[in-house]
Amino acid sequence: MSKVSIAVLGASGYTGADLVRLALSHPNIEIAALSANAKAGQSMAEVWPHFAMFPALPRLVKAEDVDLAGVDVVFGCLPHAASAELLSGISGPRIVDLSADFRLKDAATYADWYGNAHPAPDLLPGALYGLTEFARDDLPGADIVACPGCYPTAVLLGLLPLMDLISPERITVNALSGVSGAGRSLKEANLFAEVAEAVAPYAIGRHRHMPEIEQELSLRAASPVMISFTPHLIPMNRGELVTMIVETAHPVADLRAALDKRYAAEAFVHLLPEGVGPATRMVRGSNHVVLNVFADRIPGRVIVIVAIDNLVKGSSGQAIQNMNVMLGLPETAGLSAAPLFP
Amino acid sequence: MSKVSIAVLGASGYTGADLVRLALSHPNIEIAALSANAKAGQSMAEVWPHFAMFPALPRLVKAEDVDLAGVDVVFGCLPHAASAELLSGISGPRIVDLSADFRLKDAATYADWYGNAHPAPDLLPGALYGLTEFARDDLPGADIVACPGCYPTAVLLGLLPLMDLISPERITVNALSGVSGAGRSLKEANLFAEVAEAVAPYAIGRHRHMPEIEQELSLRAASPVMISFTPHLIPMNRGELVTMIVETAHPVADLRAALDKRYAAEAFVHLLPEGVGPATRMVRGSNHVVLNVFADRIPGRVIVIVAIDNLVKGSSGQAIQNMNVMLGLPETAGLSAAPLFP
Amino acid sequence: MSKVSIAVLGASGYTGADLVRLALSHPNIEIAALSANAKAGQSMAEVWPHFAMFPALPRLVKAEDVDLAGVDVVFGCLPHAASAELLSGISGPRIVDLSADFRLKDAATYADWYGNAHPAPDLLPGALYGLTEFARDDLPGADIVACPGCYPTAVLLGLLPLMDLISPERITVNALSGVSGAGRSLKEANLFAEVAEAVAPYAIGRHRHMPEIEQELSLRAASPVMISFTPHLIPMNRGELVTMIVETAHPVADLRAALDKRYAAEAFVHLLPEGVGPATRMVRGSNHVVLNVFADRIPGRVIVIVAIDNLVKGSSGQAIQNMNVMLGLPETAGLSAAPLFP
Amino acid sequence: MSKVSIAVLGASGYTGADLVRLALSHPNIEIAALSANAKAGQSMAEVWPHFAMFPALPRLVKAEDVDLAGVDVVFGCLPHAASAELLSGISGPRIVDLSADFRLKDAATYADWYGNAHPAPDLLPGALYGLTEFARDDLPGADIVACPGCYPTAVLLGLLPLMDLISPERITVNALSGVSGAGRSLKEANLFAEVAEAVAPYAIGRHRHMPEIEQELSLRAASPVMISFTPHLIPMNRGELVTMIVETAHPVADLRAALDKRYAAEAFVHLLPEGVGPATRMVRGSNHVVLNVFADRIPGRVIVIVAIDNLVKGSSGQAIQNMNVMLGLPETAGLSAAPLFP
Repeated sequence: MSKVSIAVLGASGYTGADLVRLALSHPNIEIAALSANAKAGQSMAEVWPHFAMFPALPRLVKAEDVDLAGVDVVFGCLPHAASAELLSGISGPRIVDLSADFRLKDAATYADWYGNAHPAPDLLPGALYGLTEFARDDLPGADIVACPGCYPTAVLLGLLPLMDLISPERITVNALSGVSGAGRSLKEANLFAEVAEAVAPYAIGRHRHMPEIEQELSLRAASPVMISFTPHLIPMNRGELVTMIVETAHPVADLRAALDKRYAAEAFVHLLPEGVGPATRMVRGSNHVVLNVFADRIPGRVIVIVAIDNLVKGSSGQAIQNMNVMLGLPETAGLSAAPLFP
Repeated sequence: MSKVSIAVLGASGYTGADLVRLALSHPNIEIAALSANAKAGQSMAEVWPHFAMFPALPRLVKAEDVDLAGVDVVFGCLPHAASAELLSGISGPRIVDLSADFRLKDAATYADWYGNAHPAPDLLPGALYGLTEFARDDLPGADIVACPGCYPTAVLLGLLPLMDLISPERITVNALSGVSGAGRSLKEANLFAEVAEAVAPYAIGRHRHMPEIEQELSLRAASPVMISFTPHLIPMNRGELVTMIVETAHPVADLRAALDKRYAAEAFVHLLPEGVGPATRMVRGSNHVVLNVFADRIPGRVIVIVAIDNLVKGSSGQAIQNMNVMLGLPETAGLSAAPLFP
Repeated sequence: MSKVSIAVLGASGYTGADLVRLALSHPNIEIAALSANAKAGQSMAEVWPHFAMFPALPRLVKAEDVDLAGVDVVFGCLPHAASAELLSGISGPRIVDLSADFRLKDAATYADWYGNAHPAPDLLPGALYGLTEFARDDLPGADIVACPGCYPTAVLLGLLPLMDLISPERITVNALSGVSGAGRSLKEANLFAEVAEAVAPYAIGRHRHMPEIEQELSLRAASPVMISFTPHLIPMNRGELVTMIVETAHPVADLRAALDKRYAAEAFVHLLPEGVGPATRMVRGSNHVVLNVFADRIPGRVIVIVAIDNLVKGSSGQAIQNMNVMLGLPETAGLSAAPLFP
Repeated sequence: MSKVSIAVLGASGYTGADLVRLALSHPNIEIAALSANAKAGQSMAEVWPHFAMFPALPRLVKAEDVDLAGVDVVFGCLPHAASAELLSGISGPRIVDLSADFRLKDAATYADWYGNAHPAPDLLPGALYGLTEFARDDLPGADIVACPGCYPTAVLLGLLPLMDLISPERITVNALSGVSGAGRSLKEANLFAEVAEAVAPYAIGRHRHMPEIEQELSLRAASPVMISFTPHLIPMNRGELVTMIVETAHPVADLRAALDKRYAAEAFVHLLPEGVGPATRMVRGSNHVVLNVFADRIPGRVIVIVAIDNLVKGSSGQAIQNMNVMLGLPETAGLSAAPLFP
């Protein structure tokens, strides 16, 4: 087939850069344009150390200067609000958005958590929540796909197949993330000397990924779901691990069977052998997901653990996986590299 | 006063070395002997990089070759089982043990979790569980003090003052530890390339610190306590952070008030200002503890977070703090150094 | 074309694992057999976290149990001495060896530096030193290819094109390596807590890669070359950076021109723009090399800096690059993934 | 004796904070005032995580609002230029400056390297270059002491005792530094995700510490000294290691003897046993220095390696050591804590 022409809006952030990294190895992708308003005019090699050997990449331009003629898919890697504002003006190309703007169905909830009115609330009903493994049937017909947040990706993959077996009102999520999840912005909290040899919780009890997780879990549960969610920043570049305590009347074997059944045929989601703990080093740099369930010491509780690479399955990899399904390409195209260890 | 003469059994492990480090700055301590069976005959400078400048430290000898004449306090930094076997034969010096051997009151529980019969069960009733802030009154009369494990130290300091306010059967503990907690033994899992840029859970649902935590919480609760406890190894040398979800009928302000009241006069335990998240970088290298409480999104739940340095307050620092109280020295003697950051 | 069938001997070390990782993405490779004597009987997923999702990989067998019928290329990822012993008994498949055994032309020099007599000295004359960019013409005819060590790869790529311009007797190399270079063996020096937050030199003035570098530089120089070489271990998994001070009567622009001319057409070796310092983050996980030259403050001296990934271009990647050229495949086959950053 | 009252100007940077950390443990210091213009009004606990437990520290004020009445010693922890401007207006307290402003004797050299005219050139002749071990006799009479830069401290301690034995025009210094050396300013290059798992050279051939090193070496040499100096940033918080190649007509044993003689009686500078490589983990968090000499493979060359903690002996620790000598206090007062490992 002919190549898919893509534009990446916001190519100066970590998610934008990782999307470009993956696109460079994708057999069907042609990168038509890259935008980054603050770095317009620079080459990708000037902005990113690891693109030193790719001089042929398009230079960065301002988002409004991107020529969309002939572009098949636009990837939005912009901050929330800016993303919806820009993307709502685009017609022609299909849109895969990595920001938070099209994930929540309810504009009021969005305004509550993000602090601004939604820039394009009329587009929300038509946007598809793109957790690929659960959106596969609808992706070919979607014009706007909202890629899930990194934490929601991990949490939902672990819990969605279990919702018939667990108590929806007693879900506790403890989450650990590498620092790339905080972006490339210049904040004291992201400096090496603040993060290295240290661990700290953040956004305790009020992280913006909570309503998104609750929205998607509620759709599968009999009743509205609320979760306990505590994220922590740990000293590593990439990777995310969620440890969840759920309550259930079923033995852990039943939960294991439900996950096994749901994911046996999946290319990227892997239920580990009994007793093997998921670890981020199993998936580094890749679109793979590893998960497992364990009996808790307290009867009636089960521990569900999921590990992903926050920039790949938690962001740019899933975006490309979504694009593949949207366009009828093999779902694993451009995503088959094995994880990098050590 | 004259100096306190100490012997450290097991000075070739991280806890033993950190005890020596702290003892070197203690105004009242004189190090009489250091043992390490596998390294007997070597100097501390040969075994430890950071003692290169302390040539006057006693050479390592085998434990049975330690001369206890004139020794006031023996610190046991040995593995479990070995510790009780050795210490049970000692008479004269008072004993501060950092192993697990004298923490559990019930020899059967010990055998269950540690896989061996207790070497000296008759000593268990007389051993004092030395969480200093809660054992202070009994320390001066104690001959054997069992220093709490690192996780139990953090968990108990966070929960003990709250036991009247929370539901004892719904406690969830998520724990994060630096790698020094795993000791200096040669295991693949402790290699740099396995640990760096990675996070993984371990001992899921069955960590040996669980019965110890449950024993101490049960003593303060109306009913036996069982906890959910999931530890994780993160890529840092030192530090430990526990994030706990508890259920309560009281507002978070009441829990805050209880902690404030309990710890206002403590030298080492610090309730942080409202909204400030505890972080291991606040306490690195020191005997200090920082903690705080937060409202959870789910009504009736509260998040309690505690950070310590696992080798200091979680081990060797608390051992010296206990010795100070046992001997009537100022409790902070030798422990007043500020944390090291960055 | 039909697939190339390969066997990897020594698949339980980091270089073996990285060779398998790269082979999995190679369009022309089929993995026929994997050996690891100490782990024979285990699956790769049991031995390696990042192969959890590749259940179809051959199980590990003992080296003597590998069936070489139909195997086109054997990759030796074994320790020195063991490698030559085993490989010298193989006939049929072509051999790409990653050990030190076939790098030195002189068996006496080998014995001097490695401490054992060479197991197969008669094979040395026929073995090709496989620094791909300089061995390209001879690779198609070679039956045994010795892949250069990681440090020699970086040093030689930086210096070989400059030998006509610099003084051969005044070369100073300072080298920095990530910890994966030390292998997966259980040594105290490789433990996380020993390496993290630390840097140390090792093998000061007597590293085994020195004779190999000197051999290859001497071949291009008018006179025998000896180098100053000081390697250091730094707290990162992958990557290697060499900083070299050379003396020259020529301006730095001439050296730059020589490098530019030599590498302009190379797929993997990249002279950076003037003033841009090579960094390991530019090449992580990839077969790429970045280098540059800088004027030193002392007239007549020039600084040459080269960065590689020690496990890829410094080891397994170059092995596959060599195989590609040996077999007439595109040189970049299986090696085109962009570096991973962050 | 009564306490020494100190003011710290610039307490919101890493050197200022480490000075406060050390001062808190100093038996003779009383902290009278702390300034930080951008953070004026905040408590140290708000600015620094590790001072959460020191509520009694003075609040930060603007530098011009510091009340110097009764202050004995002012520590300047400000950026260059700002430091001399501010300090030149102070009379009364003695000054220990940690900036670069009073290190170079020649105002023109200063202007060349720092890009601004010296704000107070008339003070330069009277300022003492405070490498304590070599300035000890002059410190009691000094009113302005310029603490050496971190790299110069390590280089000079390694080379000054050797200047009679080595060739002054052939000194090559390769330097490695932890990230705290770059300060707490918000630069992309200091973000965790840019630094972790990576190493890079910087300021290649033109680092500002070069003229300072050359000035001090030239004072001991027969002729003006110029050095090759290449610094690198490595992924750790603290620590600095310099690896130097020198040329000499003497055997390495003579150089060893010269160092031994010079430092045998020093409290902080330690010549390691033969063959032991200096490492930053030997000195972390402490004012200690470890060094050693090694024969190079090339006859006539010797390798000199020195490790320090850049924030302590390389900055704040040496500042306090200088103050101690200035005031006739024990030189080790407040600096006797053992290094922190792991």
